[in-house]
Amino acid sequence: MLDVLRRNGPASRAQLVDGTGLSRATISSLTTDLLRRGRVVELPRRPGTGTGTGRPSALLALEPTSEVVLGVDFGHTRVVLVLADAAHEVVGSRVRRYRRPTTWSRRVAIALDAARDLIASNMAVNGSPAPTAVGVGIPGSLPHREDVVATVTTALSSALAAPVRSDNNARLAGLAETVWGAAKGLQNVAYLKLSHGVGGALVLDGRIHTGPRGTAGEFGHVGLDPTGPLCRCSRQGCLEAYVGLERLLSDAGVDTLAALKDAVDAGVPQATDVVTAAGRRIGAVLAAAAGVVDVAHFVLGGELAALGEHLATPVRNVLRNRLLGQAQADLRVELAALGEYAGALGAVATVLREPTAAGELPTAV
Amino acid sequence: MLDVLRRNGPASRAQLVDGTGLSRATISSLTTDLLRRGRVVELPRRPGTGTGTGRPSALLALEPTSEVVLGVDFGHTRVVLVLADAAHEVVGSRVRRYRRPTTWSRRVAIALDAARDLIASNMAVNGSPAPTAVGVGIPGSLPHREDVVATVTTALSSALAAPVRSDNNARLAGLAETVWGAAKGLQNVAYLKLSHGVGGALVLDGRIHTGPRGTAGEFGHVGLDPTGPLCRCSRQGCLEAYVGLERLLSDAGVDTLAALKDAVDAGVPQATDVVTAAGRRIGAVLAAAAGVVDVAHFVLGGELAALGEHLATPVRNVLRNRLLGQAQADLRVELAALGEYAGALGAVATVLREPTAAGELPTAV
Repeated sequence: MLDVLRRNGPASRAQLVDGTGLSRATISSLTTDLLRRGRVVELPRRPGTGTGTGRPSALLALEPTSEVVLGVDFGHTRVVLVLADAAHEVVGSRVRRYRRPTTWSRRVAIALDAARDLIASNMAVNGSPAPTAVGVGIPGSLPHREDVVATVTTALSSALAAPVRSDNNARLAGLAETVWGAAKGLQNVAYLKLSHGVGGALVLDGRIHTGPRGTAGEFGHVGLDPTGPLCRCSRQGCLEAYVGLERLLSDAGVDTLAALKDAVDAGVPQATDVVTAAGRRIGAVLAAAAGVVDVAHFVLGGELAALGEHLATPVRNVLRNRLLGQAQADLRVELAALGEYAGALGAVATVLREPTAAGELPTAV
Repeated sequence: MLDVLRRNGPASRAQLVDGTGLSRATISSLTTDLLRRGRVVELPRRPGTGTGTGRPSALLALEPTSEVVLGVDFGHTRVVLVLADAAHEVVGSRVRRYRRPTTWSRRVAIALDAARDLIASNMAVNGSPAPTAVGVGIPGSLPHREDVVATVTTALSSALAAPVRSDNNARLAGLAETVWGAAKGLQNVAYLKLSHGVGGALVLDGRIHTGPRGTAGEFGHVGLDPTGPLCRCSRQGCLEAYVGLERLLSDAGVDTLAALKDAVDAGVPQATDVVTAAGRRIGAVLAAAAGVVDVAHFVLGGELAALGEHLATPVRNVLRNRLLGQAQADLRVELAALGEYAGALGAVATVLREPTAAGELPTAV
């Protein structure tokens, strides 16, 4: 029961019955016991959250001060930090910007400075303990960045005296969308991070699917046409070579994403055609994955999510046409909701969902 | 330790150390204990199975007579049954043919008759017990065949007094190839069943990936071209519409698979072109899945596997060109090895790997 609350955040008694497979009577007596021992708390009822006409059902959460987790997301020009408690409530955040290029040791020093400030102010205000674990997001394909991962993990772990878990930040952003964002509560989701490059995440059964080589979620290098445009990976016709930000701007004849958005909002045909074609290609790649892994929920994130329904509609139309049976009925294509905080939130979520191998995190009763 | 032997079959002490994470000393003392109690046995050493110049290392297996599992694979024109013991040794099999169409209640009666014969003769010869569980393979997409699944499961379960677990037989065939066949011992494998239609299986971490709607592994309906040929699923450009058996025969201008094989063996240009183009399309669909779920091991099964390297080579060439980094180095494309028995063997494997929800199967220490 504590494990369900830890993984998914606050839940009603009925949701705990579903989530644990325990009987209503067992959940009830466990709850009474855990409330008395201070391990869980009852959250204030919020009007309008119940179903029907009865009073809303109370939500139970882990005692918030029992555990605090730090999420750190390194980008090329900024680091984002969030501190969240065991009830999945964000208790504080920081964003620090730096110029490109900044060395990794410098980025870590900036992050540590912000982390100490964030932790100290949270202790002063809420009396929370120091973080029991740290999640870290790093850009790029991690199997190719082993030295960066080692540098960052070692430095943060020793400075903060806590276990550190790292992953690709596109994957973490996808996980975060399933916990707090556009796909909240969904267990099987494909997430695309659409920006200069195209990354992604596959969340299966509520966990990031990593794969044996750690390269799962590479939607950007699925091939659409062996005679297509050259990709920076040196092959031809990858999705990224068609829908990367620079390529879209060049095809649409504009200089910035804001200009592209203005052009599609104004209905300029060239810009509209470019964005629609991009959406169709994205839809085709997602449809191939959908049939093979059986996902019907999709989230479009990254900077291109600013194009909104201009991009999401052609993606949805292709998927609706390609999915089979029940998957077609279940189809949802959403724009990402968490913006710049997605990666750091995902770093928190991955720690809460999957305790480190060292077993240093508190585990369930 | 018993669980590892149950899931993967016979293993050396060193393999058990790897598979369980236990120390060499613990495995050694557990082994001594379990051998004394008759729960495991040491298999006869086979010359040539060891590495280097030392004597081959002894393999341990579950005491074979402790458990027997029945696998039943229903096709449109025959039912295949295999009986296997807890050491993953096949102790007997039966094939019974029937005409198309044969009702499901008639197919079940034929299967039960063969099962009783197989079980009785195995009891007489080996003194084995009745099957403790039954796995069943059924053709087609199971979410669309709920009544067939219910009919078959209920009848077999009540007649054989054992829990029954069912799955699509293409998926089971894929799992079997990872236990006994072309991908033996591999944990992450994409399997294609290429015949009149195209089915498949995705084995992730040694288990069939089913997906929330039970439709994972549908490689046949991945779309290659929205303006392509009409598929029997009513959409255009699915892989199956290009590489289904009838389409290949028609494109190659021959009447039978044997004639197509003769033509490609003889180097007839039209036939060779058709098979090469089919292999390239299959490779493109597998490559899309490979990048998203991170698989690098592929098995080509079904009737078209008879085309051998004429088909496998273009598949492998496309994959080698599309996979990234380590996945490219790890790439293996194999022809299925288990033929007509694959589905029934997979039905045994799924029962051994995933005990039924009812928990009626013996579980590990």
